[in-house]
Amino acid sequence: MNIVEIIGKKRDRKELTEEEIRFFVRGVCGEAIPDYQISALLMAICINGMSDGEISVLTDAMAKSGDTVDLSYIDGIKVDKHSSGGVGDKTTLAVAPMVAACGLPVAKMSGRGLGFSGGTIDKLESIKGFRTTLSEAEFTEFIRRDKIALMGQTKNVAPADKKLYALRDVTGTVPSLPLIAASIMSKKLACGSDAIVLDVKCGSGAFMKSLDDAVELAQKMTAIGENNGRRVFAVVTNMDQPLGNAVGNALEVKEAIDTLKGKGPSDFTELCYIIGSFMLVAGERAESLEKAREMLKDAVSSGKALQKFKKFIENQGGDPEITEHTELLPAAKVKKVLTSPRDGVITSIDGERIGAAAVGVKAGRLVKTDKIDFGSGFVLLAKIGDRVVKGQPIAEIYAPDEVLAAEAGEQLLKAYSFGENAEIKPMLLAYTNNHLICG
Amino acid sequence: MNIVEIIGKKRDRKELTEEEIRFFVRGVCGEAIPDYQISALLMAICINGMSDGEISVLTDAMAKSGDTVDLSYIDGIKVDKHSSGGVGDKTTLAVAPMVAACGLPVAKMSGRGLGFSGGTIDKLESIKGFRTTLSEAEFTEFIRRDKIALMGQTKNVAPADKKLYALRDVTGTVPSLPLIAASIMSKKLACGSDAIVLDVKCGSGAFMKSLDDAVELAQKMTAIGENNGRRVFAVVTNMDQPLGNAVGNALEVKEAIDTLKGKGPSDFTELCYIIGSFMLVAGERAESLEKAREMLKDAVSSGKALQKFKKFIENQGGDPEITEHTELLPAAKVKKVLTSPRDGVITSIDGERIGAAAVGVKAGRLVKTDKIDFGSGFVLLAKIGDRVVKGQPIAEIYAPDEVLAAEAGEQLLKAYSFGENAEIKPMLLAYTNNHLICG
Repeated sequence: MNIVEIIGKKRDRKELTEEEIRFFVRGVCGEAIPDYQISALLMAICINGMSDGEISVLTDAMAKSGDTVDLSYIDGIKVDKHSSGGVGDKTTLAVAPMVAACGLPVAKMSGRGLGFSGGTIDKLESIKGFRTTLSEAEFTEFIRRDKIALMGQTKNVAPADKKLYALRDVTGTVPSLPLIAASIMSKKLACGSDAIVLDVKCGSGAFMKSLDDAVELAQKMTAIGENNGRRVFAVVTNMDQPLGNAVGNALEVKEAIDTLKGKGPSDFTELCYIIGSFMLVAGERAESLEKAREMLKDAVSSGKALQKFKKFIENQGGDPEITEHTELLPAAKVKKVLTSPRDGVITSIDGERIGAAAVGVKAGRLVKTDKIDFGSGFVLLAKIGDRVVKGQPIAEIYAPDEVLAAEAGEQLLKAYSFGENAEIKPMLLAYTNNHLICG
Repeated sequence: MNIVEIIGKKRDRKELTEEEIRFFVRGVCGEAIPDYQISALLMAICINGMSDGEISVLTDAMAKSGDTVDLSYIDGIKVDKHSSGGVGDKTTLAVAPMVAACGLPVAKMSGRGLGFSGGTIDKLESIKGFRTTLSEAEFTEFIRRDKIALMGQTKNVAPADKKLYALRDVTGTVPSLPLIAASIMSKKLACGSDAIVLDVKCGSGAFMKSLDDAVELAQKMTAIGENNGRRVFAVVTNMDQPLGNAVGNALEVKEAIDTLKGKGPSDFTELCYIIGSFMLVAGERAESLEKAREMLKDAVSSGKALQKFKKFIENQGGDPEITEHTELLPAAKVKKVLTSPRDGVITSIDGERIGAAAVGVKAGRLVKTDKIDFGSGFVLLAKIGDRVVKGQPIAEIYAPDEVLAAEAGEQLLKAYSFGENAEIKPMLLAYTNNHLICG
């Protein structure tokens, strides 16, 4: 097989065969194909696209390029979830105990974050003593007994994706739906679950700005999963502003606890019920989305979801008392209140600016070696659609010192826009269900 | 300036600015831009194209990436010619003396060939003693006195093109009209002529198979030249079969001599008159193509063109007697005659097969270090449209030994197709004249 001919086929909008795609991925991993040929093919894919069949094979080959995880020791259907990410997204923290409380085992592997705020691992590590490095025996035991465990990715998952992503980043080939879908799904396939619920964020604060693109990405990922024998549901959810009120690691843990107590922000609570419902349906714990939602609400109102979270913390070395005494969580040295500069209705909150400001107060990382300040971040007191008066507090700023707090205040002010009317979109914009898209 | 943003613009079909294109070419030459980014941009150009403005800037930047030739010491308009190449194309050998005999100075720089048969330099070096390495003083003196001189490219002409071409060759980005046009024209611009006549070959034996593509390439190269202050005429000529009858270095020199005596094959003679006419008009030696053709015919019939060729050979160290005694040219050890396997009309002759067969008898090179056998090659005795009977000689084969001759015979037979009727196309298919295309 000849890589130049393969590149030429994609350049001419022809479909690649399974053999050609697997030859390519082998060559990427084995370094038999030089970077300049890989990047030429990536650009041809970026411009000319790939069929669902091609993407499915590419994803499978990438998933199998490294270690794969075996979850067969857990009974029943194993459901994973993935979010395309956004500022304030702490969904796993609240959804995992909710669905575990409803009887669905949650065996979750997560990564660390780069950018706006930490990843799920960073958020959990803001709980003193919490261990995300578990032995396989511990992980298995916690899931068997309590149906919930979470650990950092220790295995060499999808190395082909790492190589391709590094090259895409420097060759202008990041914004390709087939390549984005393959990158996300290769890691999900390698992690061994039977079913996957995907949350594709859409809006000004998300990578996917347009609903059409988000729906297309959702469809492609659903097709990849189904072509590779996995049950996949993808939801497209609104990300026009940060999710919930809290941005920053310990602050987000506190918001997740509030939500498990039934006292969380309405937008974040709604997202948890949406994701949780699809997970329960995917795992055959509920017959319909409506019934699943009732189960989740019961788990919250009965206190079972919070109990599950306590058990989860205790199992992994943290102090479960933080759920009743959140003042035990790390706190920032400085707290400031940001007030509204005018009367009016908040019409938009620029998530990218909020995210950059969060990195400014050390709630997130710019490079892998940056150390996170777990107590830093923001609590937004007013969101899109809220009417405020001049001088009214609109956000709390938590920072390591006065200078960074003041800088963050200036950044945050620029993130808010005011007007007379605001459009408020629903949280659930669309979802796929065995290829059916519902708007 | 950021190369990833430049790649992204071309990926998104946006026009690059002059600064961005010059930044790219500087980065290619200075090795500031790694190959994987160059190849990503080449693929984006290959698929999304370039405007005439972009191509003109790219070509100028490539032309100026190395040494440029100064021909200002020659009075009047300096006219260069270029052919996109084909089997049996020995046009320069006959046209240069013809137009020099009409008073147009010909200061020609040529390269060696790779593939089907040698380049112009190889063909001339089949004349014993002929030197293509001249001092600048000799070159100047010959042109001043006799209006004709030819030498091998000694300068570092368009190194950016060399680098880009090497990368295109291994990344599936050769078949891009903007990149082909820029590659050819960068070398022409660097060689310092005021006017350029381009011969774009079109047909089954040429790189451009379709007339539309050939016309588009002709138009693009004309636009590049004019945007860079050069007068350009481009002709699109028929290349459905090898040009003339002779294929192979000494055989082609002999055919050029025959043509200068007015006894050449009709198709090749016609092409010489076409190219020569445009050169005389471009150099303002003739008012019209018709008058130019009369001048060329007179130069041939009066013997002045042949005289000019003799002088040319003598100046550069060869024996001018070969024009009267072509048996003085190198001869192959073995000569065989190929006969027709059937009665019928020849409907096609596959130039690529003939070219491959020529390499087989060592008339051309596969790699730069291959040594050419000057006497080897073929003389086609029957061409498209000729009616032949079984057993009639259709080609002469000249080879270094019997085995290679027999192999070439088999190859040649496969190149011929027979039928009852053949379509005979005119030599001149289209031409550009200040952007006007005449079919």
